[in-house]
Amino acid sequence: MATNATHGWVEGSGAPLTDEMLEQLDTWWRAANYLSIGQIYLLDNPLLRRPLTRDDVKPRLLGHWGTTPGLNFVYAHLNRAIQERSLSTIYIAGPGHGGPGMVASTYLDGTYSEIYGDIDRSDEGLRALFRQFSFPGGIPSHAAPETPGSIHEGGELGYSLSHAYGAAFDNPDLLVAAVVGDGEAETGPLATAWHSNKFLDPAQDGVVLPILHLNGYKIANPTVLARIPESELLDLMRGYGHTPYLVSGGFDGEDPIAVHRRFAETLDAVLDQIAQIKADAATGTLDGRPAWPMIILRTPKGWTCPEEIDGHPAENNWRAHQVPLSNARDTEEHLRLLETWMRSYRPEELFDEAGAPVPLATALAPEGDLRMSANPVANGGLLRTELRLPDFRSYAVDVPSPGETVSEATAVLGGWLRDVIAANPTNFRIFGPDETASNRLQAVYETTDKQWNAELWPIDAADNHLARAGRVMEMLSEHQCEGWLEGYLLTGRHGLLNSYEAFIHIVDSMFNQHAKWLDSSKKIAWRRPISSLNYLLSSHVWRQDHNGFSHQDPGFIDHVVNKKAEVVRVYLPFDANTLLSTYDHCLRTVDYVNVVVAGKQPAPNWLTMDEAIAHCTRGIGLLDWAGTERPGEQPDVVLAAAGDVPTLEVLAAASILRERIPSLAVRVVNVVDLMRLQNDTEHPHGLSDRDFDAIFTDDRPIVFAYHGYPWLIHRLTYKRHGHGQLHVRGYKEEGTTTTPFDMVMMNQLDRFQLVIDVIDRVPGLAEREGPLRQEMQDARLRARAYTRAHGEDDPEVTGWSWSGTGGSGLGDTGDDNR
Amino acid sequence: MATNATHGWVEGSGAPLTDEMLEQLDTWWRAANYLSIGQIYLLDNPLLRRPLTRDDVKPRLLGHWGTTPGLNFVYAHLNRAIQERSLSTIYIAGPGHGGPGMVASTYLDGTYSEIYGDIDRSDEGLRALFRQFSFPGGIPSHAAPETPGSIHEGGELGYSLSHAYGAAFDNPDLLVAAVVGDGEAETGPLATAWHSNKFLDPAQDGVVLPILHLNGYKIANPTVLARIPESELLDLMRGYGHTPYLVSGGFDGEDPIAVHRRFAETLDAVLDQIAQIKADAATGTLDGRPAWPMIILRTPKGWTCPEEIDGHPAENNWRAHQVPLSNARDTEEHLRLLETWMRSYRPEELFDEAGAPVPLATALAPEGDLRMSANPVANGGLLRTELRLPDFRSYAVDVPSPGETVSEATAVLGGWLRDVIAANPTNFRIFGPDETASNRLQAVYETTDKQWNAELWPIDAADNHLARAGRVMEMLSEHQCEGWLEGYLLTGRHGLLNSYEAFIHIVDSMFNQHAKWLDSSKKIAWRRPISSLNYLLSSHVWRQDHNGFSHQDPGFIDHVVNKKAEVVRVYLPFDANTLLSTYDHCLRTVDYVNVVVAGKQPAPNWLTMDEAIAHCTRGIGLLDWAGTERPGEQPDVVLAAAGDVPTLEVLAAASILRERIPSLAVRVVNVVDLMRLQNDTEHPHGLSDRDFDAIFTDDRPIVFAYHGYPWLIHRLTYKRHGHGQLHVRGYKEEGTTTTPFDMVMMNQLDRFQLVIDVIDRVPGLAEREGPLRQEMQDARLRARAYTRAHGEDDPEVTGWSWSGTGGSGLGDTGDDNR
Repeated sequence: MATNATHGWVEGSGAPLTDEMLEQLDTWWRAANYLSIGQIYLLDNPLLRRPLTRDDVKPRLLGHWGTTPGLNFVYAHLNRAIQERSLSTIYIAGPGHGGPGMVASTYLDGTYSEIYGDIDRSDEGLRALFRQFSFPGGIPSHAAPETPGSIHEGGELGYSLSHAYGAAFDNPDLLVAAVVGDGEAETGPLATAWHSNKFLDPAQDGVVLPILHLNGYKIANPTVLARIPESELLDLMRGYGHTPYLVSGGFDGEDPIAVHRRFAETLDAVLDQIAQIKADAATGTLDGRPAWPMIILRTPKGWTCPEEIDGHPAENNWRAHQVPLSNARDTEEHLRLLETWMRSYRPEELFDEAGAPVPLATALAPEGDLRMSANPVANGGLLRTELRLPDFRSYAVDVPSPGETVSEATAVLGGWLRDVIAANPTNFRIFGPDETASNRLQAVYETTDKQWNAELWPIDAADNHLARAGRVMEMLSEHQCEGWLEGYLLTGRHGLLNSYEAFIHIVDSMFNQHAKWLDSSKKIAWRRPISSLNYLLSSHVWRQDHNGFSHQDPGFIDHVVNKKAEVVRVYLPFDANTLLSTYDHCLRTVDYVNVVVAGKQPAPNWLTMDEAIAHCTRGIGLLDWAGTERPGEQPDVVLAAAGDVPTLEVLAAASILRERIPSLAVRVVNVVDLMRLQNDTEHPHGLSDRDFDAIFTDDRPIVFAYHGYPWLIHRLTYKRHGHGQLHVRGYKEEGTTTTPFDMVMMNQLDRFQLVIDVIDRVPGLAEREGPLRQEMQDARLRARAYTRAHGEDDPEVTGWSWSGTGGSGLGDTGDDNR
Repeated sequence: MATNATHGWVEGSGAPLTDEMLEQLDTWWRAANYLSIGQIYLLDNPLLRRPLTRDDVKPRLLGHWGTTPGLNFVYAHLNRAIQERSLSTIYIAGPGHGGPGMVASTYLDGTYSEIYGDIDRSDEGLRALFRQFSFPGGIPSHAAPETPGSIHEGGELGYSLSHAYGAAFDNPDLLVAAVVGDGEAETGPLATAWHSNKFLDPAQDGVVLPILHLNGYKIANPTVLARIPESELLDLMRGYGHTPYLVSGGFDGEDPIAVHRRFAETLDAVLDQIAQIKADAATGTLDGRPAWPMIILRTPKGWTCPEEIDGHPAENNWRAHQVPLSNARDTEEHLRLLETWMRSYRPEELFDEAGAPVPLATALAPEGDLRMSANPVANGGLLRTELRLPDFRSYAVDVPSPGETVSEATAVLGGWLRDVIAANPTNFRIFGPDETASNRLQAVYETTDKQWNAELWPIDAADNHLARAGRVMEMLSEHQCEGWLEGYLLTGRHGLLNSYEAFIHIVDSMFNQHAKWLDSSKKIAWRRPISSLNYLLSSHVWRQDHNGFSHQDPGFIDHVVNKKAEVVRVYLPFDANTLLSTYDHCLRTVDYVNVVVAGKQPAPNWLTMDEAIAHCTRGIGLLDWAGTERPGEQPDVVLAAAGDVPTLEVLAAASILRERIPSLAVRVVNVVDLMRLQNDTEHPHGLSDRDFDAIFTDDRPIVFAYHGYPWLIHRLTYKRHGHGQLHVRGYKEEGTTTTPFDMVMMNQLDRFQLVIDVIDRVPGLAEREGPLRQEMQDARLRARAYTRAHGEDDPEVTGWSWSGTGGSGLGDTGDDNR
C-alpha cells in the first residue's frame, strides 16, 4: 500500500492570526455553545425569536454542560488547523456526556444534516435538533454511535487515549486529536494509556495529540490533575514522554478572544513540531523516540454559563457539571436566567432568518471528508477491506486416527497467523498483555516483531523480537490492549487480543461498552460494519494448575453471554484443526464479539481438517467414532463436552465405558459453538428444539462436561425438553497449585467421575455396576495420592490415549506465566 | 483512640554503616536467595550435603526466580531499618509469584516455623519447606494468604500500591513498604495508584514507601519504565508527587556489598525524610502536601543466577523470569549448573550442622511483632474490633400503610451511615468513585469530609466537603477505591464501596482476587476473619434511563455468584427500611463479599421497620397485604419480585389483578436475599426444597420480575420442582435515553406486561380475559406513545400508588451522573 507519510504533515503558513480568523473561531464557538445549550434545555423556540416560556423548556433536563464549551473550543480550533494544513483528523471526546457539543459542531459543519435529513438548516431543523437530545426516541447524551465522526462514546471513562492510539496505528497520515477529561484522567486505564507513545511508530503510524482538558471538577469533586502544582503537572507529562504545552484562560471574565489567540498560536506550534517529527521520521533522521507534543488546556468548568445560580458559584464549579439551571421549567428566576444566558451568545448574529447558521458561524468548516465528522476513518466500515486469509486447511495437523497425534493448538494457529500477518501487512495486528509467546503464538515472530518505541538495546531484535515497527502490540495492560484493538477495529482494520483466560475479566467493562456500541451501531444505517472483536483466551482454567487458584476463572464467557445475542459468539474448539477452522471464521465476521477459548498445551488431535470443518460448521455434533450407539436406536446416555480438557475426559470416560460396559449405548457429543445450545428463538446460532432433541434426546440422561462454570449450561438449556436429565460438570472454584489431572479431579470433571455419573444416572446401572463404580472411586483416590506423593500426575492415568499412540494432553509441565 | 503520631518515626542513628552490618545484610540476602532457589527446584538434599542428583530435583519446575532476589534484597534492608528505628512495618510484594522470596524471608525471621510447626529449623524442616512450594498439597507461588505477613497475593498484577495505601489509612504509626514491579507498573490500576498520595493525611495516616523495582523485564518483554531515559523516569515520579531516590546496582558483576551500601544509605535518608515529615505533621507545621520519598531500585532480573544458560543470557534477561534451568532434572548440564549456582551462595556458611540458619544469617530479624511477617496489621482480623453501630431502627422511615410514604432509600441509609462514621471515627471509611453524593449518601457530610490532600482552595470546605482528613475517599477510579478498601479491610478495619451498578464491572477481576483470597484465608487457621467487603450499588440499571444504554448493566451479580457460595452474598432490599436492615447486617459480617443493590430515587416505602426486619431475616417472604390468596388454599399464581423497581411493578400488577380479576388468587413474594433461591445444598443461605415449595408452590405459574438479567433466576432455581412453571422478566439489554417507565416497558418488566404474563400462564385465563389482555397491550402502547410525545412518563401511569397517597417511584427527573 503506497502511503505518503508526509501528506498533510506540513508546517503552518506562519502568518499571524488575523482578527478575522479570531472572529471566525469565536463565532463558531458561540454558535456551538448556543446549540449545545439549546439541546440540553429547549423543546421549542430554538432561536429565541420570542421570549422564552416554560413550555419551551424540556420537562426533564438531562445533559452535561460542564465539559461542553471546552470540547467546542477545541473543535473550532482543530477546524482552523485542518483548513490550513489539509490534515486528515478525527476527534475523540474523552469526557463523558460530550454529546451536545459533538452534535452541535457536526451540525455546524453540515455533516449532521447530510446524514439526518430532518435535522436541516432551518428553524424547524433546529427545533428537531434540540428536541431529540436526551429525549425518548431521540439521541443519547454521549458521543454515541449516532454521532457523526465519533469512534468513542465515553459512556464509561478512561479509554479515550487507548482508542486514539488504536486509530492512529497504520494510519500514517492521520491526526487523532484526543481530548482527555481531567476526571477520566484519574482512571487507571487512562493513567497508563499515556505510555502508548512508546508503542507508536512515527513513520508508519499516525499521530495522537492528547489535549488534557483541565476544567477543574468532576461530578462532585475537584480533579486531581487540576489541583497539583503546575510544575508537577508538567513533570508528569514529561515523565510520560511528552512535550507539554500549557494554555490557561477564560478565568475571571477574561475575553475569550485572548484565549483563542493563545490556543491557536499554541496549536500552530504543536502542529509544526509534529510536522517536523513526521518529516524526520519519513527521511529516517529521527533520533530516538520523539517527545510528542501534548496540550494542557485549563479553562473554567461550564465556561460562559452564569457565574452564580441560587447563590452558589456555577461557572468554574462542579455545579456546572450537568444542568446548571435545573429548575428552568419550574421557576421564573431560572427561566429568565436561562434566556439571558442563551442570549449572551447573540443568536441573532449566528443564525439567519430561515434559521440557518450564518456563513461566519460555519466558515471554519473544512471541506467534505476533511470535516472531522465526515472523516471515513471514524466510520471504519467504509474503509474496511476483507483480510487476505491464507487457506487454513494447509495448516492442518495430520490426524491419522483420533488422538493419534499431539499438537499445541494455539501454536498451530500461530503458524497460520504468521501468514495472515504476512498477507496483510498494514491492517492486521495482534494485541496481548505480554503473553503472545506464552500463549504459543510465537510463530508470528518468524514474520514480524513486537512494535516498541521505548529504548531499544542491541540484543532486543534477536532476543525479544522487538523493533520500531511490528504487527504485535504487547504491553502489560489488558485495558491498553483492548482499547488499542477497539480503536483499530473501529477505524476499519482487523485484529485479535490474546490473553490468559482468567485475567480477561480485567476488561469486562470495556467489553460491555464495545458490545453495546456494536449493538447500537447495527441499528444505524450509515454506520458500516466493522471487523469483529476477536478474543483468543488461552492458558485457560484447566491448565492453571501451576499458577494456582488466583489464575483460575473461566467466567468471561458468563459475562459475555449477558450481552445481546446478535453481538456475541462463544467458541470452544477442542483441538488444533477445530481451532484453525474456528479462527478463520472469526476473522471473516463483522460486528460481533467472538470469544474463543483454546488450549496451548500439547494435546491430542481428534479431528482431521475435513472433519473439523464439518464439525465447526455445525458448531455441535456427534463424535460417532467415540460412541457405542446402535444405528436406529436411542442411546442409553449422552456424554457431552465443550472445551478441550472436558472433551478429553469425556473421551476417556467413553473409552472406559466401551470397555467395561460394552452393552451400554453411549452417544458422545461435542459442542464448539456454545450458542448452539440456546433456542433458535434466543440466539441466531441457536438450535431448534427438534434439532436439539435429535442430538441430546429428550429423555436420556446427559452427562455434560463443560469448560467453565457448570450452571451456564443450565442457563442455556433450561427450556429444552431434556433439561431435567441434564447433569453438568465444570469448574466450581476448586483449585490450587497442583497438577493438571488433579485440577479436573478437584472439580469432579475427571473421567472416573464421569463414569460414576453415568452409572448413577442410567436406570439400572447403579445396581448392576457397583463394582465398577467402586473401582472408579478407588482410581480417583489413587490418582490423587500419586500426585501428592510424586508432584506429578500418575502417567498410568494421563498416559491414556484414545488411539494408543498419542499423549493425553495432561500431565505436562507448566510454562511461562505472569 | 490515643495515638502517638511520632512513635517509630525517628531519625536514624546517623552512624556510618559498619562492615558488620553490611555482612549481615549480605548474609541474610544470600540465605534468602538460597532458600528461594531451593523451593523452586529441590525435593531433597536441601543443603547440598551431597552432590545434587536428578532425583533431588522436582519433577515439575514451577516458580519465579526473576523477581525474587530483588524482593529478598529489600526485605533484608527493611529489617535493618526496623531494628534501628523500631518501626512498625509491613511489606507488600507487588510482583507476581513473589512467593519463594517471601516464604524464605519469613522462614529466616522465624515466623514461618512458629506458624507451620513442621517447617522447623532443621534439615528436615528445610526439606519440607522446599518440597511444599508449588507442589500438590503444598503452597502457591504467590505471596498468598498462606504466607505470613502478606495482605497482597499479587496473583493478578496492579493493585500493590492501592492495597498499601488502604493499609496505611488510619494507621498513623505504620510504614507500608510496597515493592512495585516494573511489569505491574504498566497496568492501569497501578499507573493511577501513584496518585494515592493526594489522599493520604500525613498526620492521621501511616506512610507508604513505594519501591519501584526495575528489573527490566516482564515475561517476554522489557518493561516500559526500565526503557525510558532516567530523566523521564524521575520526572514521572516527581509528576506523581514523589521525591524519587534512585539506586542502581548489581550489573556487570558488581559486588553486591557495594549495592547494599548504597541502598542502605538511601533507605536511611528516605526514612529520615519521612520522620521529618511525620514530625512536622504531628506539630502542624507541615507546609502543604509533602513530596513523599520513593525509591527506584534498578537491579538485574534474576540477579545472581547464571549469566548464561544454553547460550542465551539468563541474568538480566527475561529468560530469568521464571525457572532459568528448566531441564535441571533432565540434563546433566542443567543439573550441574544448578548445583554450582546454589553453591555460589555458600550454604555451608549459612546453615549449621542441624540445618538451622546460623546467627549471622538471621541477625537482621527484628523482635516479635516487629517482624514484618508477624505484624498483626497483616493479619487484620487480629486487630479488628466490632463496629459501634447505632440502632438502625431509629432511622426507620414511617410507613403508615404500604406505599403511603416515599423515600430515597440510599439517602435514608446515608443518615445512618453518618452516625456510623461518628461512632467509629478511626476504623470505618466510605469509598467511592466521585459518586457518594450522587448515590445520595450526602448526609455523611454532616459529620465528616472527603479526605483530600491535593490543593485545597478556600471554597472547598463549604462547597466540596473537602478536608485534609475525612472518612470519605473519592477518586474517579473504581480500581483505586476497591484497592484502598481491600487494603483497609485486610488490615482489620471496616468500610464500603459505593458505585454506579453498571461500572462496578470495572473491578470484576479485583473482586475475583479478593473473593479467592477470602476463600483461601478461611481455610487457614491462623488467619483471623476480616470484615466483609461491602458494595452498595445504586444508580442502578432501571434508573439509568437518563444516562442511557452504556450505563445499563446489572450483571455484576451474575459475576459474583460464580464465586464460592461460602464467600458471596447478594441482597436486593426494595425500600428504605429493608435497606437499613440489610446494611446493618452486612456491616456486622466477616469474610464475605456482600453485594447490595438499592435505589436512590424517591420511591414508595413498603414495609415498616418491624416488617422489614422480619422480612430481611427470612430473606424472602410473602407480601400478604398485596396478595389475594384464600387461607388454606394454594394460590392460582405467584407474582415474585427481587429489586425495588421490579417489586413496584409486581405490586402494581397485583393491584390491577385484584381489581380486574378479583376471583384470582394471587400470591406476592419478594426476595431480598437472592441466595435464598438456591438449594440449601448449594449455598448456606439456600432454602430447602420444602421451604421453597411452601413459598413458590410446586405447580403454580410463577411470574418473576427480577432486577437483573432474567436467566440468573433460572440458574439459581433450575433444580426446583416448580421450575418448569417459572417465567422470569428482567433486563434484557434493551435501553436507551428515555424515561423510567419506558425502560421497564422496553424490557417487558412493566405492570401491564406482568398482567399479560399472568393471563397467559394461568390455565383458563387466556380464554376468559381476552379483553383485559388487550387493554393491557393498549395501555403499553399508550404509555409508550405518551413518553415519546411528552418526554416524560404519563403521570396517569406512574402516578399510581398502592395506598393512593404515595408516589410511584418512577417518573422523576434524572440526576447527577458521570
